[in-house]
Amino acid sequence: MAAERDPEGRAAARPLLTDLYQATMALGYWRAGRARDHAEFELFFRRCPFGGAFALAAGLRDCVRFLHAFRLRDADVQFLASVLPPDTDPAFFEHLRALDCSGVTVRALPEGSLAFPGVPLLQVSGPLLVVQLLETPLLCLVSYASLVATNAARLRLIAGPDKRLLEMGLRRAQGPDGGLTASTYSYLGGFDSSSNVLAGQLRGVPVAGTLAHSFITSFSGSEVPPDPVLAPAAGEGPGVDLAASVKEWLERVCAHLGLGVQEPHPGERAAFLAYALAFPRAFHGLLDSYSVWRSGLPNFLAVALALGELGYRPMGVRLDSGDLLQLAQEVRTVFRATAAHFQVPWLESVPIAVSNNIDEEELARLAQEGSEVNVIGIGTSVVTCPQQPSLGCVYKLVSVGGQPRMKMTEDPEKQTLPGSKAAFRLLGYDGSLLLDLLQLAEEPPPQAGQELRVWPQGAQEPHTVRPAQLCEPLPSLAESRAFAQLSLSRLSPEHKRLQSPALYQVALSERLRALVDCLRGGGPL
Amino acid sequence: MAAERDPEGRAAARPLLTDLYQATMALGYWRAGRARDHAEFELFFRRCPFGGAFALAAGLRDCVRFLHAFRLRDADVQFLASVLPPDTDPAFFEHLRALDCSGVTVRALPEGSLAFPGVPLLQVSGPLLVVQLLETPLLCLVSYASLVATNAARLRLIAGPDKRLLEMGLRRAQGPDGGLTASTYSYLGGFDSSSNVLAGQLRGVPVAGTLAHSFITSFSGSEVPPDPVLAPAAGEGPGVDLAASVKEWLERVCAHLGLGVQEPHPGERAAFLAYALAFPRAFHGLLDSYSVWRSGLPNFLAVALALGELGYRPMGVRLDSGDLLQLAQEVRTVFRATAAHFQVPWLESVPIAVSNNIDEEELARLAQEGSEVNVIGIGTSVVTCPQQPSLGCVYKLVSVGGQPRMKMTEDPEKQTLPGSKAAFRLLGYDGSLLLDLLQLAEEPPPQAGQELRVWPQGAQEPHTVRPAQLCEPLPSLAESRAFAQLSLSRLSPEHKRLQSPALYQVALSERLRALVDCLRGGGPL
Repeated sequence: MAAERDPEGRAAARPLLTDLYQATMALGYWRAGRARDHAEFELFFRRCPFGGAFALAAGLRDCVRFLHAFRLRDADVQFLASVLPPDTDPAFFEHLRALDCSGVTVRALPEGSLAFPGVPLLQVSGPLLVVQLLETPLLCLVSYASLVATNAARLRLIAGPDKRLLEMGLRRAQGPDGGLTASTYSYLGGFDSSSNVLAGQLRGVPVAGTLAHSFITSFSGSEVPPDPVLAPAAGEGPGVDLAASVKEWLERVCAHLGLGVQEPHPGERAAFLAYALAFPRAFHGLLDSYSVWRSGLPNFLAVALALGELGYRPMGVRLDSGDLLQLAQEVRTVFRATAAHFQVPWLESVPIAVSNNIDEEELARLAQEGSEVNVIGIGTSVVTCPQQPSLGCVYKLVSVGGQPRMKMTEDPEKQTLPGSKAAFRLLGYDGSLLLDLLQLAEEPPPQAGQELRVWPQGAQEPHTVRPAQLCEPLPSLAESRAFAQLSLSRLSPEHKRLQSPALYQVALSERLRALVDCLRGGGPL
Repeated sequence: MAAERDPEGRAAARPLLTDLYQATMALGYWRAGRARDHAEFELFFRRCPFGGAFALAAGLRDCVRFLHAFRLRDADVQFLASVLPPDTDPAFFEHLRALDCSGVTVRALPEGSLAFPGVPLLQVSGPLLVVQLLETPLLCLVSYASLVATNAARLRLIAGPDKRLLEMGLRRAQGPDGGLTASTYSYLGGFDSSSNVLAGQLRGVPVAGTLAHSFITSFSGSEVPPDPVLAPAAGEGPGVDLAASVKEWLERVCAHLGLGVQEPHPGERAAFLAYALAFPRAFHGLLDSYSVWRSGLPNFLAVALALGELGYRPMGVRLDSGDLLQLAQEVRTVFRATAAHFQVPWLESVPIAVSNNIDEEELARLAQEGSEVNVIGIGTSVVTCPQQPSLGCVYKLVSVGGQPRMKMTEDPEKQTLPGSKAAFRLLGYDGSLLLDLLQLAEEPPPQAGQELRVWPQGAQEPHTVRPAQLCEPLPSLAESRAFAQLSLSRLSPEHKRLQSPALYQVALSERLRALVDCLRGGGPL
């Protein structure tokens, strides 16, 4: 995998990509003399998406880029001045002009980690004014990335390890950047490749793609054909007129399939021939522009067999309408019969790709035992996450000036856990997940092999566990992807169920639990 | 409204923001000597989103920007060379290097127009290779913009004309650009403002926002207070110690409400005071950080009344949890009673804003007759379009070299209408919508007052209509928004129903219908 390279960065991820209230609060903090108070926020989600029992953390690489580049330009400050009160002290804007993230510390789950409700994906600490301003952009960069990575991981779980999964949802995404994010993080979540060329160029995601119906229907068959002479694959021997060879093969194929030689559409065949001449080593047939059985398949076979004589092997066929599973089985049957008839064994195993609004249910059907489908293209269902289009991450203040802070709303689900915290993932002796432990930052870390008393979220009594633990550095996208697959392998079969109650436990340490009780008891600290 | 200004453009909307198969097809066209064949594509959707009877066209301004800037840079061409066959003719890459959109013509529905299934939002014609390459970026730029504009229009229909609607979904969008697109086009669809500062800076969308819970909870009440002296609003007379005045008002308010003066949270009050000092003309209270009744409301009233004595009027309050409608009614009751008690009539009508995962159903509740809610903040539900996160636009080839092209798949819904077409929106004598007419480009346009025979989509018999018609130039975002509201006013009550069969008719001219029959009859042209 190529390294990631995004020299221009993303113009849209700028400091003003934020909610206005971050700027008004910044002025409020500054006016109150609190701009430099040391504060800490946690970014987390409250429920696993899609009714499942896990999420994958993602988006951190975009956050790191954003934080490194964070600087308000003159035009940004001028725009803020135009929407803040006209009598705002100019010294505030001078303060903004000098801001950067050099005083900000971010601790994070590595990309591709399993993530669970309430356990911070990011812990962001630094001057109150700055870490407040970061809320919206960090939520924006983490939430969708994690959601689409999780969605891709679910689709991979359904597809199993052997099917090739192609993400092709750029046209269904929320604009250019939604598409780039979707392609990057669906690859992280377990897809094999993307149709999105920019994701290949900027992020090193493997790209794939062949041809669309418009290419086929753009040919009528009456066009002046291109130079049809093709050299053999091995490079030795004279070139062959591929057009003439296709014509001969068409007659043999039609006779074999019991079709009239005039039935297959000449425009479709001209398109296949043109594509084969441009891509002799990567010929691909889209079979359903007119009729799979009477046109697409015989035309494909004629071109593939003509290429085959020259030593080239076709890369595959694609079906984009109808009952995809049934069609794939029938196409494979024809491939086998034709391979036997013409004694060309390679034809049996030509990959069959399918696409057409494939969702989780249809994917399960296509991945069932005995399916002849090899490659599955998914667009809308991976990119838009239709079952739950938002992860609903939040970014909550947990301490200021070293003092814990807690939101004590009347809605219990919206209460926060106070204090600067450390999170540990505890593993059992067999490497399985035990639970995630949240404790106060100043508590000593848990030790492998030592018994611990912890309070599972929502429990009324403490539990006892005896764990081992784990930590990873920030990896490349390819490494994150490998790490995501490794992370997923730790899930028990129950956790992998796609509709699942929150099985995995998140627990509080005794002291954190005591702090919560104390703050709930009332009054300020 | 400020003009739009996006000097940097959007780095992500570049020529390589496309599916790889566009590039492979480009090579195929080029190799077949067809790169410069004149072709026309249509971009349209097949079904109205969200089960309704209309969509709003949007995204055109982004398409125009993209087309103007379309140029493959050296690095782009090098990347394509790295993913295409190594023996590709270098002349192909020279061809790519020289490409621009100077030969491309786009006809489009103006932004903010009503759009109906099968009627092109864009008609794109030009050299086959280029207009093929444009497929994915144009779909990406139009589909989500139109979807979110339509979603916003539905939410506006539910809210009625008087509620102020604030879009605040940046953190729930598909990354930076998804957020920018959402803010821009939800404004177009009828929202009043956005929290997204960048949408204000780059697109001229009115921005709004005040403060979050973190601002409140960041104060404990023990902070060293800022300089609390505030001059009167009119600018005349001595300054007043606002902190002292708030303290006095707190006692009076608590006595009036029957609360102990120690009950309201001192940190929350300190936060309100700090905000009031920073924004005396725009003071806003977020009421539910601790307890609306025992803390948020009395603290707000104390600060608001202290400001009021100096001639300042608070801008509003916000509720972010609980039963928002019920709370708003009760808060309004307290405002009225307190206004009467202290003889401050302005307090009665302080705007009440609400937020917290508001969807269509909850919005209808909040907008019901007698509701005391004035401002409604919506994030996830407008930005992610959870009822249908993708519009499913397609981009289909309709002619090459002046010859009509048609996709004749076995799936009837995926069949296309052939030929370069003109679309007309026919209005009745009362200005109401009659139908959209699709005809071949070379047919004479329909004339107002003249009877026409047309074939409604799917009908077996022609109908007769007698219309008048309409056309608009490309307007600014603000004008598009006004135009969208005007467009929506043309919908009949039946069309405005949010769950609706496709009531609006799209009809074919006699000649277009005949061409379809001819091509369906079989064989190439």
